Amino acid sequence: KNKYGSINELNKQYWSHFWSHTYQDWSELESPAPHGETAVHGLRLDYQEFYSDLTIDLMKLEIDTVKKYNMEMPVTHNMFNENCGYDYTKMSKLLDVTSWDCYPEWHCKGDKNSEWEQAVSAAFRYDLCRSLKNKPFLLMESTPSTTNGQQIGKLKRPRMHMLASMEAIASGADSVQYFQWRKSRGAYEKFHGAVISHNGSGDTRVFRDVCDVGKKLGELSFLKNTVTKSEVAVIYDWKNICALEEQKNLRREGKEFVEIVKEHYEAILKNYTSVDIISQDMDYSGYKLVIAPMLYLFKEKTSERIRDYIAKGGTFVITYYSGLVNENDLVYEGYSPYSLNDVFGVKVEEIDSLCDEESNEFVYRGRKYYGYYYCELADACGANVLSEYNNDFYAGKPVLTKNKFEQGNAFYLACRTDKEFLYDFYHDLIVEKGINRILDAEFVQDIMVKERKSGEKSYRFYMNFSTRTKEIAGHHLNGYGFEVEEVENN
Amino acid sequence: KNKYGSINELNKQYWSHFWSHTYQDWSELESPAPHGETAVHGLRLDYQEFYSDLTIDLMKLEIDTVKKYNMEMPVTHNMFNENCGYDYTKMSKLLDVTSWDCYPEWHCKGDKNSEWEQAVSAAFRYDLCRSLKNKPFLLMESTPSTTNGQQIGKLKRPRMHMLASMEAIASGADSVQYFQWRKSRGAYEKFHGAVISHNGSGDTRVFRDVCDVGKKLGELSFLKNTVTKSEVAVIYDWKNICALEEQKNLRREGKEFVEIVKEHYEAILKNYTSVDIISQDMDYSGYKLVIAPMLYLFKEKTSERIRDYIAKGGTFVITYYSGLVNENDLVYEGYSPYSLNDVFGVKVEEIDSLCDEESNEFVYRGRKYYGYYYCELADACGANVLSEYNNDFYAGKPVLTKNKFEQGNAFYLACRTDKEFLYDFYHDLIVEKGINRILDAEFVQDIMVKERKSGEKSYRFYMNFSTRTKEIAGHHLNGYGFEVEEVENN
Amino acid sequence: KNKYGSINELNKQYWSHFWSHTYQDWSELESPAPHGETAVHGLRLDYQEFYSDLTIDLMKLEIDTVKKYNMEMPVTHNMFNENCGYDYTKMSKLLDVTSWDCYPEWHCKGDKNSEWEQAVSAAFRYDLCRSLKNKPFLLMESTPSTTNGQQIGKLKRPRMHMLASMEAIASGADSVQYFQWRKSRGAYEKFHGAVISHNGSGDTRVFRDVCDVGKKLGELSFLKNTVTKSEVAVIYDWKNICALEEQKNLRREGKEFVEIVKEHYEAILKNYTSVDIISQDMDYSGYKLVIAPMLYLFKEKTSERIRDYIAKGGTFVITYYSGLVNENDLVYEGYSPYSLNDVFGVKVEEIDSLCDEESNEFVYRGRKYYGYYYCELADACGANVLSEYNNDFYAGKPVLTKNKFEQGNAFYLACRTDKEFLYDFYHDLIVEKGINRILDAEFVQDIMVKERKSGEKSYRFYMNFSTRTKEIAGHHLNGYGFEVEEVENN
Repeated sequence: KNKYGSINELNKQYWSHFWSHTYQDWSELESPAPHGETAVHGLRLDYQEFYSDLTIDLMKLEIDTVKKYNMEMPVTHNMFNENCGYDYTKMSKLLDVTSWDCYPEWHCKGDKNSEWEQAVSAAFRYDLCRSLKNKPFLLMESTPSTTNGQQIGKLKRPRMHMLASMEAIASGADSVQYFQWRKSRGAYEKFHGAVISHNGSGDTRVFRDVCDVGKKLGELSFLKNTVTKSEVAVIYDWKNICALEEQKNLRREGKEFVEIVKEHYEAILKNYTSVDIISQDMDYSGYKLVIAPMLYLFKEKTSERIRDYIAKGGTFVITYYSGLVNENDLVYEGYSPYSLNDVFGVKVEEIDSLCDEESNEFVYRGRKYYGYYYCELADACGANVLSEYNNDFYAGKPVLTKNKFEQGNAFYLACRTDKEFLYDFYHDLIVEKGINRILDAEFVQDIMVKERKSGEKSYRFYMNFSTRTKEIAGHHLNGYGFEVEEVENN
Repeated sequence: KNKYGSINELNKQYWSHFWSHTYQDWSELESPAPHGETAVHGLRLDYQEFYSDLTIDLMKLEIDTVKKYNMEMPVTHNMFNENCGYDYTKMSKLLDVTSWDCYPEWHCKGDKNSEWEQAVSAAFRYDLCRSLKNKPFLLMESTPSTTNGQQIGKLKRPRMHMLASMEAIASGADSVQYFQWRKSRGAYEKFHGAVISHNGSGDTRVFRDVCDVGKKLGELSFLKNTVTKSEVAVIYDWKNICALEEQKNLRREGKEFVEIVKEHYEAILKNYTSVDIISQDMDYSGYKLVIAPMLYLFKEKTSERIRDYIAKGGTFVITYYSGLVNENDLVYEGYSPYSLNDVFGVKVEEIDSLCDEESNEFVYRGRKYYGYYYCELADACGANVLSEYNNDFYAGKPVLTKNKFEQGNAFYLACRTDKEFLYDFYHDLIVEKGINRILDAEFVQDIMVKERKSGEKSYRFYMNFSTRTKEIAGHHLNGYGFEVEEVENN
Repeated sequence: KNKYGSINELNKQYWSHFWSHTYQDWSELESPAPHGETAVHGLRLDYQEFYSDLTIDLMKLEIDTVKKYNMEMPVTHNMFNENCGYDYTKMSKLLDVTSWDCYPEWHCKGDKNSEWEQAVSAAFRYDLCRSLKNKPFLLMESTPSTTNGQQIGKLKRPRMHMLASMEAIASGADSVQYFQWRKSRGAYEKFHGAVISHNGSGDTRVFRDVCDVGKKLGELSFLKNTVTKSEVAVIYDWKNICALEEQKNLRREGKEFVEIVKEHYEAILKNYTSVDIISQDMDYSGYKLVIAPMLYLFKEKTSERIRDYIAKGGTFVITYYSGLVNENDLVYEGYSPYSLNDVFGVKVEEIDSLCDEESNEFVYRGRKYYGYYYCELADACGANVLSEYNNDFYAGKPVLTKNKFEQGNAFYLACRTDKEFLYDFYHDLIVEKGINRILDAEFVQDIMVKERKSGEKSYRFYMNFSTRTKEIAGHHLNGYGFEVEEVENN
């Protein structure tokens, strides 16, 4: 009695393109368990979608039950990871407001004087959550102290809880909420950082930190319902990530697909420019620049929509390993990116995976950068080649191309590059396309700038994720310090 | 028909504090298997105790059967690891004599010229086995050659088998026995080092080593029933270790609880002072100094007994992460250590876990030491602060405190420290409290000194766990050499 | 109704030496699954043979079915790994021609300028496949591009596909075939390198590489049915490898048995001498030199056949850890190597496993070499000691011995040595025994030389597995280059 109906209907919907056999019984199906069917990627992808859809159906049942009694009651569902097995794009359509549980591993990794990497990761998740409905969201869970079960149970350093909370607000959250109010006495989460510890006291460092954040939230209450305006979007697509993880090409371990999407996101962030994170199905027309890193799984309609978006004047950047398989994980025939060779002026023949210690080089606008990890061998068929490989047997093949297509511009990036290139390249695009920036300034290491807008005013957050004092646009920020600035919109 | 009776009785005993539901059937219970209930730590702890108790019940059944026919037949059970899943404290109560299987990884790790680390590990296990009944025990299994299944199947170097055997005797063993007499021809243990190999010959290096040990045991037969007299005890508690392993705070991997207890044990050993290893339930009154490293799980009565022991003049050292949960793994409300804030003059608010490369510093009696791994943030509420953190945002918070409580002294140590500190600190305590040492000498690297006593005499073992010649108190010891010295008791 | 008959017969054949119990039912047997019986090595070995035999039975059923209709149709079965769970020696007896699937990890490992290590691995597999029937074989599967599922999906560099194909031909293959002709659109192997990619085009780098190889194969078609003549054989025995993996001695991980056999093989290869790879059951009489590295599992008849081979004038080299267990994995009583102490003039008492950073030293013909990993403690009982350990407590014990036994020579090598020793030692043996070499030249790093023969002519392949230009015997070879030379047989 759910939408999948009988086994035969399911079969028709999902499996018929693989097997001609008609199933008589659910028991004939193998799940992609370790001892089940794992080699047919299309089946695994379908199973994952089936699993996600069933969960969303259950959520819908619960929403309908509640709404029957109170139509005004807003509904949310806390989300958690970039890729937790559920399609958040579908899920969010049924919600009134999206919400997120955020547990960065502050103070645990790498340079102890900089939390920039963790801050980018958190910002990516906040912008993803915000973009799902393109409106303010809720920070549903955070901790003012240690996070249960992390590799190192570090205490949050002084001022870190305030800064981390402000990052959420700056990114579009209308709340900073806690899991947990008070530590339980027993079981798995008994030591997970809480507002009140087992001592029951308000006279603790953590409680004072929470009070400070509460006071600040009160001062910033005018931010409620202010929004983020982005002219740039990065495509992060749930089904694409599932498919990328399944495929057996490139590398067996350490494929780093999510990291690669984040690198493009970070390059826009460092250009102090607002950015949305959208799925391939969302509307591109509101953006001046759309970036599609490794958009491997490419729906038929996506191809048409990219063509249309560029034709009408949009700027689109697509990278290596894009436009390869359809929704059922069947490889498109022809050269990638599927059906867009004329639009990008490029056709791709092969992709080389590099060992960890290997790299290539290329020059872009007179500066040398390096390519690594994934390097495609493509040929220009109409595009202008802006950069090409300097080394290896594919020296001379394009790294970066630009193609004028009707009213718009189509860029093709053939390899994973260093972060410096992405920062410089997107800087040039932002300037050329007249994209609005939050702040017209060079990136200052560890300083994040984000903005929320009401009709008449903009509210800029300057946040210092380093322990050292920093200067940005005349603002003096102490270690882990921040400032909120009010600016009149023109 | 065992003591757990019906499922309802079991429920009342164990689970009633969690669930109000009354079980009707065993099938309603979930074991803490990977697919079972693993998040409720109290249940896991109970399950582990249930599992241990059932095994001990079976052992009792076997003992009773044998004893029915021969009351004089002494009963033992070979024990193996510090934490094998059975509560050896309970088990040993049913035994006439305890016994141990000991397989150190000689020659396999770290500095090839020093077996000190392995020797400390073995000594810890021997002292644990001996302390269970506070009388001589049996070395039930050892090998004169390679140990089956270890990462590297090293041969025992010349003199190592003798030295290792003497360490057992020095630690209170009344036997050196072998697994195995003769190598089996087939199956898993066919190459495990034996007295007789597959060649069936007595003309082998290993057989000669065994003969030498046998001869030496004959010469030392007067040691039978001589005992170890300790005025220092370290608490190593089975239930505490189980609970520490379950909790999700501090670190996900590498918690090193057992290593930390051993560090305190080793500091006493290096002060050439006899030490017992006891559970929290054992009697403290016979000791001048009791040390409780990370006594996280704290029975209600333990708290009372510590208070009583100190009040009557005892010296008690407790560390970070002690006195946190009760027998059912429920966190105590209030500040740790539970119900002893007045006794130790300390209340603890938070604990910070440090990354591997991080450390803090403190000064004790004019010398600088370092803290690492686990650093608690406590406040003195009555205690004298002897040392405090030099660095990080909790600089100035106490590392070591001393509180005079009635007739006794209560020390609180707030962080894991380097081994040098533990050696120096316990040296000072031993001197101040007039604790009897085996030998009044500075620790000589790699030299272990242990002692057994009869009524009138003491027998001191000087053992050199290095390949190099060493001097200790006028004794000249060759590489892997040892001496037994007879001393009149005063 | 298969040859195993009833459970009781199986029991008599296999298990009766362990258990006196007579099985009534298959359900009484435990397989060596993780939750089954894994400690009785003889059972595991039997199970593996049973599993292999059943598969071969199935293959026979299929062969018989086909041959009933066409007796001339040659039959093959593609083989894959040195140790895949099937006994290839038995399997190949039913085949008309052997065939191999070969996927080296070119360009992925170590020195990026040298593919020597991968080339040796491939050559070993080719020579194994060829030796199974001692006649040309088929390269059944290879890829002209990336291999699916490898850690790094590297493209084959220019000239690598040609060179890799020529290595197969040089080693006795009469074909270079591909998996796959055309990439599938879906599932696990959709990106595995193919002759035709998803673009369907013949105008690709990969397709041109395949055409080049096809053209070259046409030019070399006269090589069909030419053979390899070896006067040296290395014993690589399937059942021995299974048994070595089961035993719990030496090391828990990183036993490196296959690597050790390959080291002996490589030493002959570097002496530019043809070598067969045979099982212990094959005929030794055609060889001037037979090498048995770690021939742990030793059938009764093998012992007799080695004795007979040496008595009649053969030269036999056996190493540490040989002649220890019988076919049922039961250890022989007495000193190893079983029943051949008089033939080799050696009896072995113990074996030491060394830690990774440890080594020993020995001198052979005035040069110093080192031993490591596995070092046996043996005594000469008649043999001449050619080299002995310089260090450790077994200094002076033999490393290498030679024993004249009737018409032949029996060498015993007591430890794993560096590759330089193996090269020099086998060089001396080849010269002394007048063994025919392909080329009388010093090994040039990265240059492999192999040979096929017809009645009157020899065809020598000179292959350069480095990216650098090399010289060998007057031949100038570019990076990844090769030459085929025709030579008149004398």
